[in-house]
Amino acid sequence: MKALRIALSQINPTVGNFEKNVSKIIGYIKKAKTFGANLIAFPELSITGYPPEDLLLKIQFIEDNLDALKEVQKNVDDIVAIVGFVDRKDDIYNAAAIIYNQKMIDSYHKMYLPNYGVFDEYRYFRAGTRCPLYHIGGVKIGVNICEDIWYPEGISRTQSLAGAEIILNINASPYHIGKGKFREQMLSTRASDNMVIIAYLNTVGGQDELVFDGHSIIINQNGQIIARGKQFEEDLIIVDLELEGVMMGRLHSPLRRQEVIKLEKDAFEKIEIPVEKTFFKKRTGPRLRLPSKDNKVLAPLEEVYTALLLGTSDYVNKNGFKGVIIGLSGGIDSSLVATIAVDALGKNSVTGLFMPSPYTSKESIEDVYALANTLGIKIIEIPINKIFLSYLDSLKGDFSGLPADVTEENLQARIRGNILMAFSNKFGWLVLATGNKSELSVGYATLYGDMAGGFAVIKDVPKTMVYDLCRWRNNKEGIAVIPENVLLKEPSAELKPDQKDTDTLPAYSLLDPILKAYIEDDKSFKEIVSLGFETEIVRNVIKMIDKSEYKRRQSPPGIKITRRAFGRDRRFPITNKYRGY
Amino acid sequence: MKALRIALSQINPTVGNFEKNVSKIIGYIKKAKTFGANLIAFPELSITGYPPEDLLLKIQFIEDNLDALKEVQKNVDDIVAIVGFVDRKDDIYNAAAIIYNQKMIDSYHKMYLPNYGVFDEYRYFRAGTRCPLYHIGGVKIGVNICEDIWYPEGISRTQSLAGAEIILNINASPYHIGKGKFREQMLSTRASDNMVIIAYLNTVGGQDELVFDGHSIIINQNGQIIARGKQFEEDLIIVDLELEGVMMGRLHSPLRRQEVIKLEKDAFEKIEIPVEKTFFKKRTGPRLRLPSKDNKVLAPLEEVYTALLLGTSDYVNKNGFKGVIIGLSGGIDSSLVATIAVDALGKNSVTGLFMPSPYTSKESIEDVYALANTLGIKIIEIPINKIFLSYLDSLKGDFSGLPADVTEENLQARIRGNILMAFSNKFGWLVLATGNKSELSVGYATLYGDMAGGFAVIKDVPKTMVYDLCRWRNNKEGIAVIPENVLLKEPSAELKPDQKDTDTLPAYSLLDPILKAYIEDDKSFKEIVSLGFETEIVRNVIKMIDKSEYKRRQSPPGIKITRRAFGRDRRFPITNKYRGY
Repeated sequence: MKALRIALSQINPTVGNFEKNVSKIIGYIKKAKTFGANLIAFPELSITGYPPEDLLLKIQFIEDNLDALKEVQKNVDDIVAIVGFVDRKDDIYNAAAIIYNQKMIDSYHKMYLPNYGVFDEYRYFRAGTRCPLYHIGGVKIGVNICEDIWYPEGISRTQSLAGAEIILNINASPYHIGKGKFREQMLSTRASDNMVIIAYLNTVGGQDELVFDGHSIIINQNGQIIARGKQFEEDLIIVDLELEGVMMGRLHSPLRRQEVIKLEKDAFEKIEIPVEKTFFKKRTGPRLRLPSKDNKVLAPLEEVYTALLLGTSDYVNKNGFKGVIIGLSGGIDSSLVATIAVDALGKNSVTGLFMPSPYTSKESIEDVYALANTLGIKIIEIPINKIFLSYLDSLKGDFSGLPADVTEENLQARIRGNILMAFSNKFGWLVLATGNKSELSVGYATLYGDMAGGFAVIKDVPKTMVYDLCRWRNNKEGIAVIPENVLLKEPSAELKPDQKDTDTLPAYSLLDPILKAYIEDDKSFKEIVSLGFETEIVRNVIKMIDKSEYKRRQSPPGIKITRRAFGRDRRFPITNKYRGY
Repeated sequence: MKALRIALSQINPTVGNFEKNVSKIIGYIKKAKTFGANLIAFPELSITGYPPEDLLLKIQFIEDNLDALKEVQKNVDDIVAIVGFVDRKDDIYNAAAIIYNQKMIDSYHKMYLPNYGVFDEYRYFRAGTRCPLYHIGGVKIGVNICEDIWYPEGISRTQSLAGAEIILNINASPYHIGKGKFREQMLSTRASDNMVIIAYLNTVGGQDELVFDGHSIIINQNGQIIARGKQFEEDLIIVDLELEGVMMGRLHSPLRRQEVIKLEKDAFEKIEIPVEKTFFKKRTGPRLRLPSKDNKVLAPLEEVYTALLLGTSDYVNKNGFKGVIIGLSGGIDSSLVATIAVDALGKNSVTGLFMPSPYTSKESIEDVYALANTLGIKIIEIPINKIFLSYLDSLKGDFSGLPADVTEENLQARIRGNILMAFSNKFGWLVLATGNKSELSVGYATLYGDMAGGFAVIKDVPKTMVYDLCRWRNNKEGIAVIPENVLLKEPSAELKPDQKDTDTLPAYSLLDPILKAYIEDDKSFKEIVSLGFETEIVRNVIKMIDKSEYKRRQSPPGIKITRRAFGRDRRFPITNKYRGY
């Protein structure tokens, strides 16, 4: 019976760490061989990590990547390995090496280069122009890369019509909420449209603003998912692909342009991978039937939470920090960030820094200590009032006669920023900034103050979702890790007496949908008003968003979890007189 | 005699300010008509300003841009106007409208889209596919846009071979040192290669990180410059283009593929602009002979200095700031920035803030006041020691037993950052950050400290060039605006006793060429060593550059003056384990 044992190696490479990436790849090749796999695949650019950005403009980097691939090549024996790397010919290409018995048989070059959202691939790569079929002892495989599979009339279509039984699509596809499910739908359609098995392999891990969610899947020619890799974890998915049905199925299927393609098909480039006759016979044991089949797709809040954990732990660990420090205010944002940090890094790697002022309420003090207690983290308390008074004293001459305003509020926030950074400098801890997407959108945050930090964990999480995530986390273990009072009390920056967020902003339940419409969905002022929001509120919100671009430009990177995050994903001019309202 | 009076309108639009841009364009059209011009041109995307970045993803923005163009159209009478705008057909295009008598005759779509350096045009635009010849009463003009003219085999070649006598190339081409001269050379070659008159029109003005330098030129078919617009200023260049010689010249020239192109030429798309018979006769007065011919290209240091003036004044004015505040240390960087600010904005718009500490030397105090005196700016003095002591006191428990280190240095820098921002908040002044490119490259700067500010004027100026610019500025008027002692003393951050920059860094005369090799020229460790630098020094410098990416990511925008600036121009991962040394 015709079958191929395929191994999808869903690894977490590190950008630029050739040594580690190579040894990880070789390790998985060995592992896959012990399971008798015929073919093992690795994600897009797994040699370099993704995205390498302007490292790709360094000739030495490209050469080191080729050397790294050669190192992998030496370790490919009696198995076909398909590995993402940067190929260099007349130009550089986002490529997949097809390797067998220490030999590079061919190199596929990505043909559709994404250049939108967070992607800049035209900045680096030339697009490929050929998509051969690889014949492995009679099994016909088409290989393509990421974006290539998103076009219905694209490479996968061509390869299938030319006779491919399996499409292997290797990816570095960044996460946002619900994208995994959307991918599953698209791939299922693509498989059944083309009556082809699709093996979709995604990388996993955090890289600055991006989280790659793994969630590789294998779909049969009828569009049914037959294997699913873990989300947000490394995984090795090994499946026996039954091929008998694929070509036979096509015979009594609707036409699917088989006739139209006949001539082209004969001319289609075929590359034979010269496997021995015993290649398929060596598989040990029974056909594998996948534990991975039972992996469920995480529910939305758990999915986001897990993305935040991975994004945080990879940023901290890949950058070699000894731990993190978080300014705790008793508010919901810092409480959530501390909880994520503990879940991601362990309580011993997390320090809370509480910096009360006279405006800090009694309940905030209680909430901070209650949180530190449930999390089991060390807490340091540094009151800021004396420092604040020393600033006011130094400034009183120049500010005399002027009313207190946002200046005095920001002074406090920046004193806290300075103290956080002092602990970071003294102990080598990374400062995790605690701002959420709603406040960053409207500029309700102090540059160099509460915005200070090396990594902004919930930068792309709207405030209403901050609440949802806290509730989800509390429910998960049935104990209120985050004190209930934190979820119940009204949000306040506590930078002046009796301050509430709603003094300045609409209620978050009203604000967040407007933000989504404007930022994620690119809706105009008129369109948003027509959704039923009050004209004045919409105008003010848009005004605040546009005016705050200068703050966002200086904000720390944070994890993208929505369709459009701030950062690489949204590139706005600061000098911008456009008023669409 | 066949001649066309052309007007190149080198304007300074503002991104998103349709109203202002339109009224500026209409104003210049009227002006050009009083000079009897037959044709007036405006720069690339002059309707929207350049680059509009992700504003282009807003449908409403595209529509408003089309409405703005219509407003211009209404005002085009008895003159051909060529205006850069965003066209919308099946997709959006970077386009030039060809307008005559209130009618849009055609729209040319840019065919070569730059997607490197600071450019992201594939993110927004589809590439055009046609380049007609416009016939204006027998005069044949090819229109193209910016990048289109940089390819020898590109549009200009095609248009010339099809019979164009004039190529009008409209631009938004950002400045870097020496680019103007380089452009002149290239355009001269392009004109003589194709025996065609080239009218090269560039926009002018500052837009966040970019400065557009104007410097439009007209080159005759022999490659000679016959007109040159001002650098860094709006200008209206009006020239009578003598066309008799163009076609005649080709007859006794080398073949230039005339025969080869003959057939294609007949098939070439021609669009007739239906001017009246009197169109060319209405020109009043004698043929214009250009005062602009005498504009000289500025010498390199004056060129850079002028770019910094324009970048600064446009950032401040287009963003509506009431003035600027600059932390003065007595060092050369802040002295230069203050001088630029005064030259750009006038002394009444500039406030110096001096924040001495016990480590501040006597000569720094003298130098600060000497500078404030020659510049005639207001100076505020806020000593930071009491505030510093209040921090140390608050931190003494947690830092007890630990030696003083960079933490205590950064505390001081961040106190200064906080005070600067307090003045910014209280009085609405923009903080100009004073860091240079050398220190930003190696991370010899404090995040939220001396890096704090809304705009970093000399962010892309290497330290050695900071000296050169100061000397140039002092020589210019023959008086030492910047006190001589500032140029003579050794650079120091004065954050601890007897500190010198050279305690931490190589001498700047050694550091700067290494930085240029690594950052601007993308040279590898080995290549830089082979240039004759010491291995250990190169390794340390590269290590410092790579490690500081996280700081640069949070730095304020500043003016690009080199081939590769930090910011949009250089996109590096923070999480990056690549060690090319």
